[in-house]
Amino acid sequence: MKRDIQALIAQMTLEEKAGMCSGSDFWRLKGVERLGIPRIMVTDGPHGLRKQQGESDHLGVFDSVPATCFPSAAGMASSWDRELIGKVGVALGEECQAEDVAVLLGPGANIKRSPLCGRNFEYFSEDPYLSSEIAASHINGVQSQGVGTSLKHFAVNNQEHRRMGIDAVVDERTLREIYLASFEGAVKKGQPWTVMSAYNKVNGTYASENEYLLSDILKEEWGHEGIVITDWGANNERVKGLSAGQEVEMPGSGGVNDKKIVAAVQSGQLSEEALNRAVERILRIIFMSVDNKKPNASYDRGEHHRLARSVASETMVLLKNEGNMLPLEKGKKLAVIGAFAQKPRYQGGGSSHIKPTQIDVPFEEIQMLAGDAASVMYAQGYHTDKDDVDAALVEEAKKAAGGADVAVIIAGLPDRYESEGFDRKHLHMPANQIQLIEAVAGVQSNVVVVLLNGSPIEMPWIGQVKSVLEAYLGGQAVGGAIADVLFGKVNPSGKLAETFPLRLSDNPSFLFFPGEGNRVEYREGIFVGYRYYDTKKVEPLFPFGYGLSYTTFEYSNLVLSSREIKDTDAVNVQVTVQNTGARAGREIVQLYVRDVESTAIRPFKELKGFAKVELLPGEKKTVTLTLDKRSFAYYNVELKDWHVESGNFEILIGRSSEDIVLRDTIGVESTVVVKIKVDRSTLLADLMSDPQRAPVVQGLIQKFQEGMGVSTDNLQSMEEALGEGTGEMFAEMMKYMPLRAMVSFSQGAFTDEMLDGLVAQLNHL
Amino acid sequence: MKRDIQALIAQMTLEEKAGMCSGSDFWRLKGVERLGIPRIMVTDGPHGLRKQQGESDHLGVFDSVPATCFPSAAGMASSWDRELIGKVGVALGEECQAEDVAVLLGPGANIKRSPLCGRNFEYFSEDPYLSSEIAASHINGVQSQGVGTSLKHFAVNNQEHRRMGIDAVVDERTLREIYLASFEGAVKKGQPWTVMSAYNKVNGTYASENEYLLSDILKEEWGHEGIVITDWGANNERVKGLSAGQEVEMPGSGGVNDKKIVAAVQSGQLSEEALNRAVERILRIIFMSVDNKKPNASYDRGEHHRLARSVASETMVLLKNEGNMLPLEKGKKLAVIGAFAQKPRYQGGGSSHIKPTQIDVPFEEIQMLAGDAASVMYAQGYHTDKDDVDAALVEEAKKAAGGADVAVIIAGLPDRYESEGFDRKHLHMPANQIQLIEAVAGVQSNVVVVLLNGSPIEMPWIGQVKSVLEAYLGGQAVGGAIADVLFGKVNPSGKLAETFPLRLSDNPSFLFFPGEGNRVEYREGIFVGYRYYDTKKVEPLFPFGYGLSYTTFEYSNLVLSSREIKDTDAVNVQVTVQNTGARAGREIVQLYVRDVESTAIRPFKELKGFAKVELLPGEKKTVTLTLDKRSFAYYNVELKDWHVESGNFEILIGRSSEDIVLRDTIGVESTVVVKIKVDRSTLLADLMSDPQRAPVVQGLIQKFQEGMGVSTDNLQSMEEALGEGTGEMFAEMMKYMPLRAMVSFSQGAFTDEMLDGLVAQLNHL
Repeated sequence: MKRDIQALIAQMTLEEKAGMCSGSDFWRLKGVERLGIPRIMVTDGPHGLRKQQGESDHLGVFDSVPATCFPSAAGMASSWDRELIGKVGVALGEECQAEDVAVLLGPGANIKRSPLCGRNFEYFSEDPYLSSEIAASHINGVQSQGVGTSLKHFAVNNQEHRRMGIDAVVDERTLREIYLASFEGAVKKGQPWTVMSAYNKVNGTYASENEYLLSDILKEEWGHEGIVITDWGANNERVKGLSAGQEVEMPGSGGVNDKKIVAAVQSGQLSEEALNRAVERILRIIFMSVDNKKPNASYDRGEHHRLARSVASETMVLLKNEGNMLPLEKGKKLAVIGAFAQKPRYQGGGSSHIKPTQIDVPFEEIQMLAGDAASVMYAQGYHTDKDDVDAALVEEAKKAAGGADVAVIIAGLPDRYESEGFDRKHLHMPANQIQLIEAVAGVQSNVVVVLLNGSPIEMPWIGQVKSVLEAYLGGQAVGGAIADVLFGKVNPSGKLAETFPLRLSDNPSFLFFPGEGNRVEYREGIFVGYRYYDTKKVEPLFPFGYGLSYTTFEYSNLVLSSREIKDTDAVNVQVTVQNTGARAGREIVQLYVRDVESTAIRPFKELKGFAKVELLPGEKKTVTLTLDKRSFAYYNVELKDWHVESGNFEILIGRSSEDIVLRDTIGVESTVVVKIKVDRSTLLADLMSDPQRAPVVQGLIQKFQEGMGVSTDNLQSMEEALGEGTGEMFAEMMKYMPLRAMVSFSQGAFTDEMLDGLVAQLNHL
Repeated sequence: MKRDIQALIAQMTLEEKAGMCSGSDFWRLKGVERLGIPRIMVTDGPHGLRKQQGESDHLGVFDSVPATCFPSAAGMASSWDRELIGKVGVALGEECQAEDVAVLLGPGANIKRSPLCGRNFEYFSEDPYLSSEIAASHINGVQSQGVGTSLKHFAVNNQEHRRMGIDAVVDERTLREIYLASFEGAVKKGQPWTVMSAYNKVNGTYASENEYLLSDILKEEWGHEGIVITDWGANNERVKGLSAGQEVEMPGSGGVNDKKIVAAVQSGQLSEEALNRAVERILRIIFMSVDNKKPNASYDRGEHHRLARSVASETMVLLKNEGNMLPLEKGKKLAVIGAFAQKPRYQGGGSSHIKPTQIDVPFEEIQMLAGDAASVMYAQGYHTDKDDVDAALVEEAKKAAGGADVAVIIAGLPDRYESEGFDRKHLHMPANQIQLIEAVAGVQSNVVVVLLNGSPIEMPWIGQVKSVLEAYLGGQAVGGAIADVLFGKVNPSGKLAETFPLRLSDNPSFLFFPGEGNRVEYREGIFVGYRYYDTKKVEPLFPFGYGLSYTTFEYSNLVLSSREIKDTDAVNVQVTVQNTGARAGREIVQLYVRDVESTAIRPFKELKGFAKVELLPGEKKTVTLTLDKRSFAYYNVELKDWHVESGNFEILIGRSSEDIVLRDTIGVESTVVVKIKVDRSTLLADLMSDPQRAPVVQGLIQKFQEGMGVSTDNLQSMEEALGEGTGEMFAEMMKYMPLRAMVSFSQGAFTDEMLDGLVAQLNHL
C-alpha cells in the first residue's frame, strides 16, 4: 500500500514525533492512535520466538508463548548452508506472523573474538565473511515473510563482562576488516528492517550514540534504510543518540527522554528535520509491518519441529571418528550415558531463551532408531547442577558401558557455564563429566562423545575416545538429530565456524581479554580466530572449517577464469568435487585467498568463498565461486578505502583452513595510484618504489656515496673496520635514510636549500 | 677544578653558543678557542674503543686504533655480574684516557623486543631491570676513570629496519614499565655524562625532538644532569630538538643548523635562556672531561686481554650438558670442527666494530689446554661466506669426528647474518652449519656445540648433540675463554638474559614486527620476553634466566623480613644457597615477584632482584635482596605514577624464570587512595568497591530489584523463562549496570533528577 509518510509527519506534533523515538513498553514501539499509526511488537530471538504472555513485566523476563526452538547461531553457522538457514528464517517469520510479532530481535553478527564470551552461542563465527553470509540468509528468510529482523549488536560487542560500560578499543583497519565486515555483508545482502546498537562503547563513544558507526558507515556507506534501535537500556544521552542516527530507544524511559528530544528541538540543539528523518524511517518500518501483516496466520508445529530436527543434524560437526566408529550399526548393545541424554541442553540462557513447543529426548530417540529398544541402556553419569563427581553414578555408568558394545556419552556444558550476561573464565568441562568420560573409556574401548555446548571446550580426554560429535546447542529437536547422525540416517556435514584451541591461552585475545576496568583493547587486531592460529603457527585442537563425514570427497580441476586481472575485475574459480565413498554426503568447499607479498601486515590467508554441495556416491559436481576486489583487498586506513596491492595472490581450496588440497596463483593489478607526499623526512626507499621518482633518487644516492667516499672499491677496508656485514648494512642504511640526512652526513655540503628544492621537485613528479 | 660556567656563557656570542650545539666533525664536540673551551672527542663503543686513525672521514667508518675487544652486550648481560661489568667499564675508561677520548658512545640499554633486531648483540636483555643494572655497572665503571658514557639509543629503538623513519607506537604503561625502565635505572644509578637520542619516532615524535622523553622524563623526573646528543644524523628540526632538550646534534651540519638556532633566538622563537641552559650543560660535560683528564695515561694491553678472557668465560651460558659431557677430560682425542675455530666471530658489525689488540684462536687455545696438542684435530666443516654445503669439508669433518673421542663444533652466525643497519628475517643458522652438525652427530655420539652469535637461533639439531655452550660474541679473547670452559678451568655460570624461542613465530612481536611502512605498533605491550612466554604458557627452547653449571646448587631458608608491609616500606628477602657438587662454582639467584590478583593486566611474574654468588664445594652463603615499592608496582596511566594495588604478592626464588625453587607470600597495602569520579554512566561494581559508596549502592540495588519484581522468590520462574544460568546472569548484569540504566529499566520511575542527585551525593562520599 502506498502511503504518504511525509504528510503524516506533517500532521504530527513535536511531542508525538519525539514519542516515536522510544518504546511504549518493554516490547512495543509507540504508535499515534489519532493518526492511525499502530504500535508494533518486537520480541527476542533469534533461533526462536520469545513473546511474552499477556502484558510485559518491566524486565520482560517471564513466561512466554511456546515457539519452535531451532539450533542456536553457533550451530547454524556450522552448517555453512545459506539455503538451510534461509529456511529457518522463513519458519521463524511464519511464527512471528502467527503471533503478531513485527520484528524478531536477531540475528547476532558479532565476531567470536574470544571463546570465553558468554553469548558466543548466539553468534555465528570468528570469520566475518562466513558470519555475514549466514546472517544475510537468516535475515532474508525471516523478512521474506513480511517480518522484520534486528541485526545485533552493532558493533564490537564481543564480551558480556561489563558490557554496559566497556570501551572496545579497536583500530580502524580491524574494525573494518573483522568486526564491521560481519555486519556489512548482512546489511548489504539482507537489508534488515532494524539494526540494534550495542551496549558498549567503541573507541570511546557509546555504540548507541556513535555517529561514525550509525550514520557515516551504516546508513551512508552501506545504505541501510531501516532504523537503529538501542539494545535494551543502552541509551546514554538521548539527544546525542538521536543525532548520531539511533532512531529508537528501547524500552523507553516513561517519557523522560522524549521530553529531552522536545526540549532539544525547541532550543535548536537538534534540528526538527533530523527528528523528522528519524520518524520517517520509523514510520516506514511500522507500515512495512502493517502492510505485510498476514491476518490469521498460523504455522504447523509438527512441520517446524521436523525442520528443526533436520537443521540440527546439518549443524553437527563430526570431530573425530577413529576406525569409522560411527555410524553405529543397528543391533549393537548401547550404553547411553549422561544426564543430558534425558534432559538435553539445547539452547542458551538469556534473552534468546525460549519456551519450546516440544523437546526430543536423546535417549528415547536413540532407542527408537536402535531397532531393539531393550539393547539400549541408560546411566545418568553426572549431575548438571554441580561439578562434584558422584561415585555411584560413575560406577553405574562404567557398569552399563562395560556391558555394552558401544558407550555413547552425552556431555557438554550446563547452563550455569555459559549464558548471556557473563563470560566464561576457562574452557573446561565440568570436572564430573571429564572424570566420567575417562572412567567409561577405562572400561569400554568404543566410546562416542556427543557434545552439547555453545562454544569450544578443552578436551583433555580426546585421545581416550574413538568418536566425538559436536552438536552445539541444537534446539528442541536435537535429541532426534543426534540419533539421526549416530545411526547414519544423516551423514554429518557440518564444519567448525570457529577454532577449537588446545587451551585457552592459545587464543589471540588471551592476554588482554576482557580488559582492564572499562577498557578492552583489541591488540591482536586482524588476527582473530584462524587468522591468528594460521599466521602464528599455533596448532589448534580443531581448526576453523574442520569437520568429518561418513564418506570421502576428492577435489580436482581447479580452474581460474583469468590468471591476471585488474582489481576492478571479477574472477571465477571452479573446482570439481567427487564423492569417492559409499554414502551420499555433503561437502563444504572452502576458498581462501593469500596475499603472497604485501607491504601491509596481512593474515596468512582469509576465507573469501564457500559452497556446500550434495553428492551421491561416485557423483561429481563442479562448484563455481566468484571473487572480486574485496576478496583481495585490505582496508587501507590512509586511503580510507579497501585497497588491493598489485601482485600475486594464491587461491587455496581447502577441506578446512588447515587442509588445503588445491592451489593456484592469480596476478591482481591495482587501478589505484598511491602517491605519497614527500617531505624532508621521507625515506629514500619510499621514493624508490615510485617509478617517476626513483631515477632522481638513484642519481642522488650515487652522488652522495661518491661524496662520502663509500663505494664498492673501498668496501673491503670498510668491512675490515666495521665487520663483514658492512656491504648490506650500508645498502640498507642508504635505502632507509631520510632525505634530510644528506645535509647532516655531508656536513652541509648538500645544503638545506638544495633539500627544499629537491622536496619540491619530487612532489611535482 | 671549580669553574664559573655562567661567566663563561656570558662572554660567549650568540653564534658561539649556537655552535656549541653541534659537532665540529664526525667525532668531536665544538670548542671556543678564545675562551679556552676545548674540543672533546667522543667515539664509538661500547665493548671496546673505536677511535679513528688521523682525521675522520665523513662517515667515520675507516681504520681505527687497536683496542681491547670485550664481549658484546648480549654476552656481558649473561654474566648477571654487576662487579664484573664494572671492571670492564674501568678497563674501557683506561683505554679512553690513553687515547684521549672524552666520551665512549655506549652502553645501549634498548630492550630486546624481537630476537630479529640486527643490533641485539649490542643490547643487554629483554628484561628492563637486568638491563638497567648491567648498564649502570658499565657506566659507573667507565665514568670512574673520568671518561663519560653515552647511554643509547633513547628510546624505543628496538629494530634496525627503517630506523631513521619508523614511528614506534607504544602505550604509556609499556613505555614506562619496559622500554624506559631499562634506561631509568641506568640514569638514576649511573648518571651517564651523555644520553644518545634515537633515530626513530616515539608515538609520532622523533626521539631527538621529543620533549616528553628528553625533558619531562629524562631531565626532570629522572634528574639527568648531562647532555643529550643525537644519534649520528638523527637530527630532524634543529630548533625543535633543542627546545625539546636535545643539546648536541651529531655530527653537525657544517653550520647550517647552528644558523637556525641563531635565527630562532633572534626571532624570539627560542629563548636565549633555553640556549644558555643547553650550553651550560654542554660546558659542564666538556670541563668534567678536562678536569678528569689523566695526562700520559696508558694501559696494559696484556692485562686487558686477560680481563677480556676472564669476562668472556663468565658470560658463556651452558645450555645443555647431557651426561656431564663437559668439562672435557684431558687426554681425550678431540676433533675441533668449524671455520670459527680458526677465525672466530667475536664481535658484531657496525659502529661497535673495533680493531682488536690481538685475537685468541679457539683451536689453538683448545690445543694448549688439551695437554697433548697432537690429539686435537681440526676440520673446517663449512664456509662462512656462503650457506652452501661443501661436501668435501663435511666428509673431512666426519672423518675427524669419527676418529676422535669427542667432537667440538664451533658454529654460530656469520657477520652477514646480523649487524647494525638491518634486522634478521629468521632465526636460522646457515644451512651448511646445520647440515654439518647433523652429519657429525651421525658418526660421533659425543658432540659439543659451541655457539658464536649475537642473538638467539633455532636449534633443530639440539636433540642430536650432548652439550651446547652459548658463547655469544665473546670479544677478542673468546678463543681462550672457550678453552677455559670446555676443560673446566672455568665453571660456566652465565644465564640467559633473553628467551631462546623454539621458533620465531612464538615471539610476542612476531605478527607486528617490524611494522608497516614507517609505523610499528608494540601491540604485545608489556608482554615482552619471558613476561609473554610465561603468561601465555608458550614453551621456549631455553627460558630467560636459564643456564647450567658443572656443579649443583641447593636453595633453602627463604626468609622475608616482614609478611605485611605498606607500599612505602622496603622488605628484605633472604635465601641460602649451597654448592652441593664437587667443584667451585657461581650461581645467579633470581627473585621474581608475582601479583596474585590485580585489576590491572599484569605479567605472570617479573624479575625484581638478582645476585651472583661464588661457592666452594659444600659452601653455603646467604643472599639478601631488597624489594621496595617499585618491585610491586605497575605504572598506572590514570594516576601517572607507579602504583601498588593492595593485596598479596608471591616472592619467587628461581634458578631461572621457569625453575622456581622457593616461594613465599607477602601482603602489601597501598597508601594511595584511588577515588573515581562518579557520573551517570558509572557502573555499580565500580562503586561497590569503594567502602564509603558501597552502602548507598547496595540500598539502591535492593529497591531497584524490588521495583522490578526480580528477587530470589521468583528466581525459579525466571530460570524457566531464561535458562538455568539466570541467577548468575542477573547478578552480573546488576553489578555491571550503569547508574543511568535505572531510569530506563524503571521506565522513568527512577527519575532523571533522582539520578543527578545520586551522582552528586556519591561524588561527595
